[in-house]
Amino acid sequence: MSKIYVVGIGPGGREYMTPQAEAAILASDAVVGYTVYVKLIEHLTEGKKVVSTAMRGEVERARIALDLALKGKTVSFVSSGDAGVYGMAGLIREVAEGHPEVEIETVPGITAAMSGAAVLGAPLIHDFAVISLSDLLTSWELIEKRISLAAEADFVICIYNPKSHKRREHLDKAVDLIMQHRSGDTPSGYVKNIGRDGQKSVVLKLSELKGNDDIDMFTTVIVGNSQTRVINGELVTPRGYDHDGKSEK
Amino acid sequence: MSKIYVVGIGPGGREYMTPQAEAAILASDAVVGYTVYVKLIEHLTEGKKVVSTAMRGEVERARIALDLALKGKTVSFVSSGDAGVYGMAGLIREVAEGHPEVEIETVPGITAAMSGAAVLGAPLIHDFAVISLSDLLTSWELIEKRISLAAEADFVICIYNPKSHKRREHLDKAVDLIMQHRSGDTPSGYVKNIGRDGQKSVVLKLSELKGNDDIDMFTTVIVGNSQTRVINGELVTPRGYDHDGKSEK
Repeated sequence: MSKIYVVGIGPGGREYMTPQAEAAILASDAVVGYTVYVKLIEHLTEGKKVVSTAMRGEVERARIALDLALKGKTVSFVSSGDAGVYGMAGLIREVAEGHPEVEIETVPGITAAMSGAAVLGAPLIHDFAVISLSDLLTSWELIEKRISLAAEADFVICIYNPKSHKRREHLDKAVDLIMQHRSGDTPSGYVKNIGRDGQKSVVLKLSELKGNDDIDMFTTVIVGNSQTRVINGELVTPRGYDHDGKSEK
Repeated sequence: MSKIYVVGIGPGGREYMTPQAEAAILASDAVVGYTVYVKLIEHLTEGKKVVSTAMRGEVERARIALDLALKGKTVSFVSSGDAGVYGMAGLIREVAEGHPEVEIETVPGITAAMSGAAVLGAPLIHDFAVISLSDLLTSWELIEKRISLAAEADFVICIYNPKSHKRREHLDKAVDLIMQHRSGDTPSGYVKNIGRDGQKSVVLKLSELKGNDDIDMFTTVIVGNSQTRVINGELVTPRGYDHDGKSEK
């Protein structure tokens, strides 16, 4: 039976990739992915057919993966982070909709919300929302609505795609919307190049995210909720333990 | 220097645990955790001091981990899933606040939102909110507010702790709140015992989550957004590709 694994390889370093992801790649005849991600796993792809394409070729890549599967190949379609979070796990199923004979399995990975939170301390210990500021595929009006309602709900907010070359102002707009519901002093942070060379993390106030030229498209931003504190330089959102031992996970 | 790794071991099976998590445990003198999770990693703990405690001993466990670190031990404090998502990464930092000399490092893992989404297909391909229905540490009023606003924002909603022995009605209330903003036909799903013996997944309509006795405290529930579809029996939330190839991740 034809099979496609949609594999999340995590933030980059080998130490973040699960044995399940490694096994899926090793079990595949072909590996398809964005050039940069395929490069990160080249130690696993010797002897395999490797098809890498440049940025913005998502639909083309999905069709290539499907075509290989229809020819009887076992295919690993790789994404960074988790292929199931803003990743290729959805698109491949849309493209393959007319081919139920192709089995598609999502192999989860460490997404930037998790790896970024780990670098910053423990900001995601309570309810949170994950929002992309990219308006290439989503209307900016819907993005603004989601930011405002997430701020009103006091979710910790994890922001993907805070900026791009063309969209320098989106993060500033988002911060303004959040500050309608949350103090500008709210502990927040960002991480650049998570798990890769040049990783850098900064803990700062919500208001200090505005006009911040250090934040780029490879940065993940986390805004604390009303309870988030800075403890020994790290972001910590309390779950609410009263330190007498009650509660459950 | 004293060091505590707060380690997320993923949903249970060894294939989900990252090499980083395994290396942290192997590098530790002592391992502290809930009995069930410690059992899952006993292949890594031979020769180490192992302290396991029963459910609801979170603060006690954190204090034990801190005490061991203060005695100069390198400690792995283990959680299932990701220790940074409703996990021990926050509590240990609160308990250790007065001891900045103890280095604490969060080692991220695959949380139930990711592993559950992978089993169901690709529901988290667009903005999402993660909400726990446990009211042991959070007021039910705040939980209701977050559910309602997340539904209004058209987030995909991932629900942790949908029920417990004492709280059978919370999920039904949450579904009612979501249905004020979203059709009862909205594609949704749940996964029990993710990555463990007895794993079971069901794709169904939002309205069918009500009164569902199959869902228990070991279940993760995902409610689609207004765009989520069922494709070949799986949940898929489109990112919005028009299949002509434009866009970015």
